[in-house]
Amino acid sequence: MIENIPTTPRRGRNSPDPHLDRYAARTAGMTASEIRALFAVASRPEVVSLAGGMPNLAALPLETLSTQVAQIIAEDGLTALQYASAHGLPLLREQICDVMALEGIRAHPDDVVVTVGSQMGLDLVARLFCDPGDVVVAEGPSYVGALGSFAAYQAQVVHVEMDEHGLVPEGLRAALRQARDAGQRVKLLYTIPNFHNPAGVTLAVERRAEILEICRTYDVLVVEDNPYGLLGFDGQTHPALRSLDPDNVVYLGSFSKTFASGLRVGWVLAPRAVREKLVLATESATLCPPTLNQMIVSRYLATQDWKGQIGTFRNIYRERRDAMLSALERYLPPGCTWTRPDGGFYVWVTVPEGVDTKAMLPRAVAARVAYASGTGFYTDGLGSRQMRLSYCYPTPERIREGVRRLAGVLESELDLARAFGGVESLRIPGPQTLSPATV
Amino acid sequence: MIENIPTTPRRGRNSPDPHLDRYAARTAGMTASEIRALFAVASRPEVVSLAGGMPNLAALPLETLSTQVAQIIAEDGLTALQYASAHGLPLLREQICDVMALEGIRAHPDDVVVTVGSQMGLDLVARLFCDPGDVVVAEGPSYVGALGSFAAYQAQVVHVEMDEHGLVPEGLRAALRQARDAGQRVKLLYTIPNFHNPAGVTLAVERRAEILEICRTYDVLVVEDNPYGLLGFDGQTHPALRSLDPDNVVYLGSFSKTFASGLRVGWVLAPRAVREKLVLATESATLCPPTLNQMIVSRYLATQDWKGQIGTFRNIYRERRDAMLSALERYLPPGCTWTRPDGGFYVWVTVPEGVDTKAMLPRAVAARVAYASGTGFYTDGLGSRQMRLSYCYPTPERIREGVRRLAGVLESELDLARAFGGVESLRIPGPQTLSPATV
Repeated sequence: MIENIPTTPRRGRNSPDPHLDRYAARTAGMTASEIRALFAVASRPEVVSLAGGMPNLAALPLETLSTQVAQIIAEDGLTALQYASAHGLPLLREQICDVMALEGIRAHPDDVVVTVGSQMGLDLVARLFCDPGDVVVAEGPSYVGALGSFAAYQAQVVHVEMDEHGLVPEGLRAALRQARDAGQRVKLLYTIPNFHNPAGVTLAVERRAEILEICRTYDVLVVEDNPYGLLGFDGQTHPALRSLDPDNVVYLGSFSKTFASGLRVGWVLAPRAVREKLVLATESATLCPPTLNQMIVSRYLATQDWKGQIGTFRNIYRERRDAMLSALERYLPPGCTWTRPDGGFYVWVTVPEGVDTKAMLPRAVAARVAYASGTGFYTDGLGSRQMRLSYCYPTPERIREGVRRLAGVLESELDLARAFGGVESLRIPGPQTLSPATV
Repeated sequence: MIENIPTTPRRGRNSPDPHLDRYAARTAGMTASEIRALFAVASRPEVVSLAGGMPNLAALPLETLSTQVAQIIAEDGLTALQYASAHGLPLLREQICDVMALEGIRAHPDDVVVTVGSQMGLDLVARLFCDPGDVVVAEGPSYVGALGSFAAYQAQVVHVEMDEHGLVPEGLRAALRQARDAGQRVKLLYTIPNFHNPAGVTLAVERRAEILEICRTYDVLVVEDNPYGLLGFDGQTHPALRSLDPDNVVYLGSFSKTFASGLRVGWVLAPRAVREKLVLATESATLCPPTLNQMIVSRYLATQDWKGQIGTFRNIYRERRDAMLSALERYLPPGCTWTRPDGGFYVWVTVPEGVDTKAMLPRAVAARVAYASGTGFYTDGLGSRQMRLSYCYPTPERIREGVRRLAGVLESELDLARAFGGVESLRIPGPQTLSPATV
């Protein structure tokens, strides 16, 4: 079976690159992410993919959307198919302010910049702020796409510990103090406060003001990445960091998880001076975001029950979260621990010592289940005993089957490791990694 | 009237930016382009804008497109609205190879990377290759969006002279020799061989091999930007540089001028090793290009007479080019010279000494005509006696009226300059700027 495991195809992998001496220094840091190789795996129907972060779109009203988009092109096609401003369509920027108001944010539409997904917002923020060697502080683990953007601008990511209540303020303070003492320039705190990717935890509300205060003290700008904030399973939202400190937070938002990821419509809300720079950076990056896509989102928000739709998504994801948690409890061998998300897409699993999740992945795929191994979510080599399991895309039944297969692979690994004397199956993970809620 | 001239609105322009000390070094180079301020001007209906580069979309079959897009969403919505690969949809990449074949390019779809407009291709190429201080050689004048991207990565642009047959090989050789002697690292030649923006000229076919040979000799990668190549008014295409030297040319293509700019679908064709890096850079920039937009372009290419549509565009733009050239001949004062484009969107005008096109622009707008002043197309301060006139968007009648108004403004400027003794109205422009075909 092992022979059939797909890898990223690379023609001529052994032939030298004739352009090697021409690349910029930053290009050396660009390597294929572990997540990327998994997309190929995930597309094979016999594999249960718990690896990707693809939202479930089946609940969208496709017939209605089809009619609306047809109208946009028939009636407004000369606008929808034409260049527009780099800033984003004014009406959409107003509507985005309404969306953000659900998390306590009061913002002016002028300070919103529409981007090609929030990934582009991340990239532009890194571009504006990160000189080579600058430090970005981020949760450990953190979103792999953010780590890629910071690497692309040669910033160094320093991870700060999390626990089941999110980023640990004392850990943040210690990291900033240590960086300052080492003469390093910390430019940004990059944080995903709600339903963290990949950790599945949420920053406790009572920690939020303290974290903002620490960042102000150390003169560090906060980048709040919040794609999942409206997907809390109890329907509650948490006050955005931006709502508590408008002048020192750059907020990244997205319609990828609450509407349609393939439209690639996200946004940045930034303090005024930063926003002006962002618009300039957007021009240089893509001239403008696609006009049609902005009009589709705008029409949808204006005419459809988008809050009701988010409620539908919440119910779907809650059911899948439940399926995953009960399957983990039922199938996983002793010594495994995991987080219990109250929203979002992900569970973060820690396996017993002796198991290396990256090394195990090919065997898992051979057993027709895929996950994202933990090392991809760290820049410092941690994560080899962790994995991210996504429950967003497969059906509850497939989730259960996937976890059952995964458990079988884990049992085999543990048997093997015990035979060679490497496993201490009940050891608690060290403080440098997320302390997961135990089963 | 002068009071009514719009400028880019900036709230609190005089208030200090509290984030000023936090920006990366590259951010210092980000300033609003002259072109950008003009978009606001161009949108006022009473102004004839000869400034922008917006394609004319009125000839597109909007009803058909409307129906097709509705079908895509109704039948394939779960794909169209979902994430896809960073590389771009395989079918679209095959179709792009068919498009490029019209200019003699033989390429493998694997080596095509779909981007969010070719501007993103430019940005990613600059990202991959340009370290701060590296030199990029480009025509003088050159595309303002490219100059912005190179500035964003702190590369230095060195302009090389053009004449009515495009980039001058001896000028290129001299610039590369000089840079080498000065110890500078020249990474790229950035060139728009066909229907140049803004110069309106085309690189003579007999110069192409020589320019490629010079770049190989000096170990410089060629970036061929070709958005207008299929818009030659006689229906002829020229052999792409990429077709003559596949291993040392990165080719940028776009559907913005031959189909729909607002979809933001462009591409890069690159040598294999560079293409692999481009895919990684794309992931970091936007995760993936919008899926729906790729499917719209793909469906259009598969089912519509896209070559016939390009023929229609060619006819429209030829008629407008003719309107502009005859109006220039009829109205412009003696001493003005201009290029005579055989395709594309632009005429490059040189005005008599004593007239500063940047300083004149507010008076032109007051007289209800807008253009792009020449200085925006140079990084070295040249261009104050040049302007770019676009004939792509206004009707022939409006073009004639716009040129008539422009001529009036020029006459006034010349009267004023003569009164103060500054004009040598028949002086031929020096060799450092484009030598335009005389009237």
